[in-house]
Amino acid sequence: MVDILHRVGIKSSLDEVYKALSTRDGLAAWWTNNTQGESKVGGVFRFSAGGSDVGGFDMKVLELHPAKRVLWQVVDGPAEWIGTKISWELKQDGEYSIVLFKHQDWKEPVEFMHHCSTKWAIFLMSLKSLLETGKGAPNPNDIKIDNWN
Amino acid sequence: MVDILHRVGIKSSLDEVYKALSTRDGLAAWWTNNTQGESKVGGVFRFSAGGSDVGGFDMKVLELHPAKRVLWQVVDGPAEWIGTKISWELKQDGEYSIVLFKHQDWKEPVEFMHHCSTKWAIFLMSLKSLLETGKGAPNPNDIKIDNWN
Repeated sequence: MVDILHRVGIKSSLDEVYKALSTRDGLAAWWTNNTQGESKVGGVFRFSAGGSDVGGFDMKVLELHPAKRVLWQVVDGPAEWIGTKISWELKQDGEYSIVLFKHQDWKEPVEFMHHCSTKWAIFLMSLKSLLETGKGAPNPNDIKIDNWN
Repeated sequence: MVDILHRVGIKSSLDEVYKALSTRDGLAAWWTNNTQGESKVGGVFRFSAGGSDVGGFDMKVLELHPAKRVLWQVVDGPAEWIGTKISWELKQDGEYSIVLFKHQDWKEPVEFMHHCSTKWAIFLMSLKSLLETGKGAPNPNDIKIDNWN
């Protein structure tokens, strides 16, 4: 099993970062405009990534700890993603809210995992931008990184 | 052992991408302005990351295969980096030069590894920008991601 890891620091409160990770409107503002579902433990979010080779994916919400932690499991989407988990750990460090991101339990370090790792960094920077400037760059206006989008 | 993986696609020739990865002037234009050393197998590059908590690091060039592959080993720098390897695989896919990046053999998935993973994505996008627009964003003008810079 292999993991994608990232860390960003955001000049915003933990509560605001948590809101952007745990509400449909928050997620739609930095990740994919076309986000559907309900933010509650046991609920499922659906993200439709228009114009990308990835298509869409469904995340089941496993944990929601306000201002601390969010955990999802992928229940539908690209074959390599199904069963993997995505965790968000939040903590304060000086004037920054630190986000420790992990997309864990990939079976193999396939080429698609390389792509997703870079793309997650781009989306984390979109999250940072949303909270610091009021404007994210969610799909379909996300920054393109390669021919897989 | 754990690895950082990334993939970007660059609208440029494999030769141009290779040049940006294998010459001091190329590296200085997307990674760190303050790059010293010689690009030959067995040689060592020194990158001084001004204004960052990371400081500097020395990379020994282990392999240079024009338009195909570059491999370095970290011989000095942050403790977590020493002994790790950084590989760059290049291949053509349609109009894109695909870069498969791996920073491999980290001992543990420490918080600093999370930071470096995101930061590598930022530098790979700087490499892409350099080759597609003529302008990268090397240190000290690199995009900042967190309180570690």
